[in-house]
Amino acid sequence: MDLSALREALPDGVLLTEPVAMERYAHDFADDGSAGSPAAVVRAGSVGDVQAAVRWAAAHRVPVVPRGAGTGLSGGSSAVTGGIVVCVERMRAIEIDTACQVAVVEPGALNVEVKQAAAQHGLWYPPDPSSYEICSIGGNVATNAGGLCCVKYGVTTDYVLGLDVVLADGTLVTLGGRRIKDVAGLSLLKLFVGSEGTLGIVTRAILRLVPAQGAPATLVATFDSMNTASQAVVAIRSRLRPSMMELMDHASINAVEDYQPHGLDRATGALLIAQSDMAGDARAGELETMRQACAHAGAGEVFCTEEPTEAEMFISARRIALHAFEHQGAVLFEDVGVPIPALPALVDGIAAVAARHGVSIPVVAHAGDGNTHPVVVYDAADPASATAARAAFTEVMALAISLDGTITGEHGVGRAKKGALPDQLGPDVMALTRRVKDALDPDGIMNPGAVL
Amino acid sequence: MDLSALREALPDGVLLTEPVAMERYAHDFADDGSAGSPAAVVRAGSVGDVQAAVRWAAAHRVPVVPRGAGTGLSGGSSAVTGGIVVCVERMRAIEIDTACQVAVVEPGALNVEVKQAAAQHGLWYPPDPSSYEICSIGGNVATNAGGLCCVKYGVTTDYVLGLDVVLADGTLVTLGGRRIKDVAGLSLLKLFVGSEGTLGIVTRAILRLVPAQGAPATLVATFDSMNTASQAVVAIRSRLRPSMMELMDHASINAVEDYQPHGLDRATGALLIAQSDMAGDARAGELETMRQACAHAGAGEVFCTEEPTEAEMFISARRIALHAFEHQGAVLFEDVGVPIPALPALVDGIAAVAARHGVSIPVVAHAGDGNTHPVVVYDAADPASATAARAAFTEVMALAISLDGTITGEHGVGRAKKGALPDQLGPDVMALTRRVKDALDPDGIMNPGAVL
Repeated sequence: MDLSALREALPDGVLLTEPVAMERYAHDFADDGSAGSPAAVVRAGSVGDVQAAVRWAAAHRVPVVPRGAGTGLSGGSSAVTGGIVVCVERMRAIEIDTACQVAVVEPGALNVEVKQAAAQHGLWYPPDPSSYEICSIGGNVATNAGGLCCVKYGVTTDYVLGLDVVLADGTLVTLGGRRIKDVAGLSLLKLFVGSEGTLGIVTRAILRLVPAQGAPATLVATFDSMNTASQAVVAIRSRLRPSMMELMDHASINAVEDYQPHGLDRATGALLIAQSDMAGDARAGELETMRQACAHAGAGEVFCTEEPTEAEMFISARRIALHAFEHQGAVLFEDVGVPIPALPALVDGIAAVAARHGVSIPVVAHAGDGNTHPVVVYDAADPASATAARAAFTEVMALAISLDGTITGEHGVGRAKKGALPDQLGPDVMALTRRVKDALDPDGIMNPGAVL
Repeated sequence: MDLSALREALPDGVLLTEPVAMERYAHDFADDGSAGSPAAVVRAGSVGDVQAAVRWAAAHRVPVVPRGAGTGLSGGSSAVTGGIVVCVERMRAIEIDTACQVAVVEPGALNVEVKQAAAQHGLWYPPDPSSYEICSIGGNVATNAGGLCCVKYGVTTDYVLGLDVVLADGTLVTLGGRRIKDVAGLSLLKLFVGSEGTLGIVTRAILRLVPAQGAPATLVATFDSMNTASQAVVAIRSRLRPSMMELMDHASINAVEDYQPHGLDRATGALLIAQSDMAGDARAGELETMRQACAHAGAGEVFCTEEPTEAEMFISARRIALHAFEHQGAVLFEDVGVPIPALPALVDGIAAVAARHGVSIPVVAHAGDGNTHPVVVYDAADPASATAARAAFTEVMALAISLDGTITGEHGVGRAKKGALPDQLGPDVMALTRRVKDALDPDGIMNPGAVL
């Protein structure tokens, strides 16, 4: 491929074409086998670089795969053979506007960097994927990322007030802004959130910040099974909205203890970690409601702490679970969600799928949102294990759909789950999706093979 | 027009064709002169009726104007001459699902009815337009309606988890559902929120509910001018996020006292009504921060109350302001918003526009969001007054745009503001909007003349 015009349109050093240099830009954390060999990687340093790359790609009908930090778990930024990767990891500026209570952020900035910048002004950017220390805001916007605090504080889209987007023809548009409320015209802003790079490339985000919260209280409860723990979650969520409500199953607890010991009791069937960030009597009331629900559901131990470091031990264990699984074997990351009352049926169904296929599927969950992360762990060297894992992966998504749920609550469809998307959405919504995609990217150059 | 096929497709009594019977379906509260004479009104009683009507309209390329309670303030449901109005006011079912903490609502249900149904289960549907007692959920979704609590609790789109939508060809699609988090596919759900009936007709909404809040504390402060009151708002919002933050100017206070006396001090230059619904020390802290900011900005009186009935007197005065203006003359409703720090410049600029054109423009505001409702009051019998009012109306929108603001924060563009939309969005975003519109409604039958 003749890249000379692209090279000339970019500053020195922005274009990578050496296979070795491009290797780390070819796949994301899913590493699901969907990654091809890109013709070039554009390490954009400015919106102008992004526009130049997309204009060139549009002129030559070359696929463009947008990329942030590459921590995605669905193959959403797998390179396309013969295409270009446009990586925004160098675009990291962060401005905190305290008067507007917003952060104006370039897409390569890490989630943790936005949180830290906001915190210096007594402000808070809530969305907190478990990978918040290494994932980028651009990727968060592209997947409409969630996290642990979402049960009370919502997901990325709830915090996006404005976006600059480079469209499929290289045009730069500005949607929304620093105003809090704006209903002028169609909600194009929200359409781009969660679009996984299939409609354009985000080059700037204006993110709503909120006043920093006080330290929460933490409740930890042990159960004999995920079923009973889930029943506690259902009971609690029918009455209140805690600021965190996470679950780890027996296999997850042991995977974490194998990987990085956190002092968790390896005998525990399921661990619930919940928080209340209410103040005064309201906090006491939430904790008591949760304690009673746990006891009623048959909890073993239930204890509460106001000590942040004590709480952090449990939350850290929860956060590193996915990495712990990766140390056990090859993995397929699920992200299925269901209406909250269906949570016990989901966790039981996942166990049945695992048993049926003879694979291990440990589960951690943003349980308060009904969003679970079953992770199929298998032996990549054993073809039978890989086949069984793939079958189990597909069945777990079908299970979630059968429970009126979703194949992905926060990770995105990417390439890993797109086979199941029509089963969830049905032909009419798929057709509608295709019409929107075609309207915005008529030549289909934006992240082809992802989502659709 | 031959309506026989439409009549046959609908149950008896659903189709209205008598001009007198259709009159009340021809315009909304804006009554801005944009209403035409519809060929028929479909008083849909079911999603099947809506589909039958839209299918017939699609087959005959007849314009369709969707309509809820008709309380819109932008001419978004003005009838189109020769078209049909599809009114959903009879579709009012409400189901509260306590386990999922959602309300499943037909579009004709009033906002207040959803609030009341939720309250019976200790739950709360936050969005609260001032018209909440008479406006419908369908209209709320169509405009992405806001209200008084939005400063802390967000707007309608933040609560929409699922929608059933009848598309421009009569196809019924279901988007989202009772699951809290779902990123499978493009965010089509959010695209329909705020689309003002230009992309389809919402026939069911699944709305997120949250636990009911305790009674808030209310702070009321008087100022000599909107400028000083706005400065207090700017100072407060740079530090915290109260659960309500409303402003009334001198003219609004007096319009309300003329219309329905509420015991407000007619000499007040501007009245700030703010609330904190935090508990314990956090509440005391918010109130003290607000009190200090008011004093620093030069407030006259500042007082706090924990007494709901005392607070309600002020809030009720705020809520009925638009009706009070209507008793003073003909009105043009504005809904401009700006980034919060631009609020003082906006209110000063509005006063300058009023003086320049010799019209009265009282202002009430959801000040904590930077969203204001200047209302141009004029004498419809005097052509010069009407011309001046129209010019002032246009200039206020231009002023908001010049301050990086929006022509509409929560009412929608409708027909009343569509002339100014390109000035805000610019040609590229207008073109993008048109592409999405054309993709979803290729024959342009859905609410033609609104927004675009």
